Amino acid sequence: LTTRLPAVGTTVFTRMSQLAAQAGAVNLGQGFPDFGCERSLIHAVNDAMQADFNQYPMMSGAPVLRQAIVDKIGALYGHHYHVDTEITVTAGATQALTTAIFCCVHPGDEVIVIEPVYDSYVPAITLAGGVPVAVEMEVGAAGYTVPWAKVAAAVNSKTRLIIINTPHNPTSTVLRAADMQALADIVRGTDVLILSDEVYEHMVYDGHQHQSVSRYPELAARAFVVSSFGKTYHVTGWKIGYVAAPAALTAEFRKVHQYNVFSVNTPMQHGIASYMADPAPYLELPSFYQRKRDLFRDGLKNSRFELLPADGTYFQCVRYDKISSQTEAEFAEWLTTDIKVAAIPVSAFYQQGKESGIVRFCFAKKDETLALALERLGKV
Amino acid sequence: LTTRLPAVGTTVFTRMSQLAAQAGAVNLGQGFPDFGCERSLIHAVNDAMQADFNQYPMMSGAPVLRQAIVDKIGALYGHHYHVDTEITVTAGATQALTTAIFCCVHPGDEVIVIEPVYDSYVPAITLAGGVPVAVEMEVGAAGYTVPWAKVAAAVNSKTRLIIINTPHNPTSTVLRAADMQALADIVRGTDVLILSDEVYEHMVYDGHQHQSVSRYPELAARAFVVSSFGKTYHVTGWKIGYVAAPAALTAEFRKVHQYNVFSVNTPMQHGIASYMADPAPYLELPSFYQRKRDLFRDGLKNSRFELLPADGTYFQCVRYDKISSQTEAEFAEWLTTDIKVAAIPVSAFYQQGKESGIVRFCFAKKDETLALALERLGKV
Ligand SMILES: CSCCC(=O)C(=O)O
Ligand SMILES: CSCCC(=O)C(=O)O
Repeated sequence: LTTRLPAVGTTVFTRMSQLAAQAGAVNLGQGFPDFGCERSLIHAVNDAMQADFNQYPMMSGAPVLRQAIVDKIGALYGHHYHVDTEITVTAGATQALTTAIFCCVHPGDEVIVIEPVYDSYVPAITLAGGVPVAVEMEVGAAGYTVPWAKVAAAVNSKTRLIIINTPHNPTSTVLRAADMQALADIVRGTDVLILSDEVYEHMVYDGHQHQSVSRYPELAARAFVVSSFGKTYHVTGWKIGYVAAPAALTAEFRKVHQYNVFSVNTPMQHGIASYMADPAPYLELPSFYQRKRDLFRDGLKNSRFELLPADGTYFQCVRYDKISSQTEAEFAEWLTTDIKVAAIPVSAFYQQGKESGIVRFCFAKKDETLALALERLGKV
Repeated sequence: LTTRLPAVGTTVFTRMSQLAAQAGAVNLGQGFPDFGCERSLIHAVNDAMQADFNQYPMMSGAPVLRQAIVDKIGALYGHHYHVDTEITVTAGATQALTTAIFCCVHPGDEVIVIEPVYDSYVPAITLAGGVPVAVEMEVGAAGYTVPWAKVAAAVNSKTRLIIINTPHNPTSTVLRAADMQALADIVRGTDVLILSDEVYEHMVYDGHQHQSVSRYPELAARAFVVSSFGKTYHVTGWKIGYVAAPAALTAEFRKVHQYNVFSVNTPMQHGIASYMADPAPYLELPSFYQRKRDLFRDGLKNSRFELLPADGTYFQCVRYDKISSQTEAEFAEWLTTDIKVAAIPVSAFYQQGKESGIVRFCFAKKDETLALALERLGKV
């Protein structure tokens, strides 16, 4: 059997979680909370199962959930998607991203990705027969930024899609209004589409505002916007997300979606829809996670790790060049097995494995978990 | 946006379910039960949520569920898959089928499908860049059978995969041991793989035995075997299935799986695993559905519909040529809107829309639903 993905092994998240479990390490690697979700969300799903919402939902998603999504995007970002033709519920954000890539990338098409890049995009592009074209973020005092002039220079007649991600994993960069204008300038007058991964949309700190593509009509008109209930509601294992896109793009998305997963878990969709009636859980998320971020950063202030800015997501990147000259993978493994705190090497987010002397920690953890990790990291 | 699937519209199941809802028809079209699942299954999922099994499971599936699957296949079919390297839990059988196709079909590879063919296979092959090669089943007094000589004749050096489906949707054919021997003779000495869709494995009637590919070591060594908990446990909307395959095939499957959906709903996996400790629900399924099949067939005995054999699945095909000379799509629409009983045209399972004067009914319904449908169909 000749592989279709020669460059692909097991994801770094799986590998580091396995190593963390073996080593008995505090797992600040793979991004997921170690605390429970709200009980009322569980009750809502249980109610849906008891009420026999257990057969196929509509292929596009349960109407109640699609309506709740439309209402939320309208209230937060002022864009009013059509509930029937512009929202599709997916089996998590990963499926949304991969299906979006599959429905528009033809063999030979180029897709621009911003490195460091979330690890699922490039294999999905490759499998679709597309050609990934990477533009590297620059790292300065303000943290990682996107060099839009280089993105502009990478666009040519073969470019089909630009994939952005804000707040950005793993760098915690939150794009600004000026970034969105730069992107709009680049695609204006072309037929380049945009895929915007916004799974950390509710994790933006210090008064910054999430720059959803759906705030920008010019961009939204050519964009797939992806989000995730798993991240927002502390249930990463439920695997429910969605894509919002203009009707013409949604029609193509659904052609692939219906033959990829057909449809998505019914009782979970109904439970989430009823839980969404209260906006408090996502409106309170910035302060909830900002406190954890600050707690984690404070704990490392006097360490030999150098903290990079973290404006969004539940990740904190740190430089370790004052501590070790190991590669990022070696250093992350050593942290996991010897210090007993797992991290993710940022090199795993570069196609060529670029080394920057930076690893990523996840601070979506109980305060006592963070305290234990900080105690161990303080010894480094 | 140029479509990647020019031949694809909305699936026949979605269209007929929508028409049934509009017309207020009894929906015997799309295959799903109109009765609830067992409450203990719901409790098991709720218990898993309450116990905080809500974060990412392992990419390959929750170990408890993979073990339960291994044990079930071992007990029923005598094949002992390895729990870590040979079982992957999927977001329903559709995702399993599409991912299996994607992980082994390279652009230009040929894939043999048996027509009538379940509607997701061909779009998945097309999207992977493969070439579907259809072999038509023959219809005689014994119902639909697979002409293995024609399958053998279709194999050439470009053939990468043969997709089989037993019990077969929509024809209700259950392959026999002789069919499996014929298939083994065809692939022996070649590097052709097998994808076996066995989602109706527990719906086999009249004392026939399900011929799982996993019963045949020679076939299992080159096969992806797919099944579905949604079908078996009356929860089609939960979208949990699995693929069993030798380690080398599973490794390739997981490369695609991890970037398609990454992993599958955690609490549902745990709930199903604990529910599987009791084999009664699937052991009782043949008699449960055989009774419904007989009830439905008896009700049509004196009608002008001609019943085809139905050895498995929860579908019953009928010939309507004594009633109408309409196309199958027209006749199914007329049944839905005028007679108020929805059916699926079997022509939708042929790439070229072949007309046989046959439509498919789903009998996975409450007895009173079947009685109402029969009353209406009796007037035709
Ligand atoms: C899908 S597992 C990885 C979770 C995640 O988004 C991350 O850790 O970056
Ligand atoms: C995935 S919707 C179709 C259900 C089904 O398998 C059928 O009706 O044939």
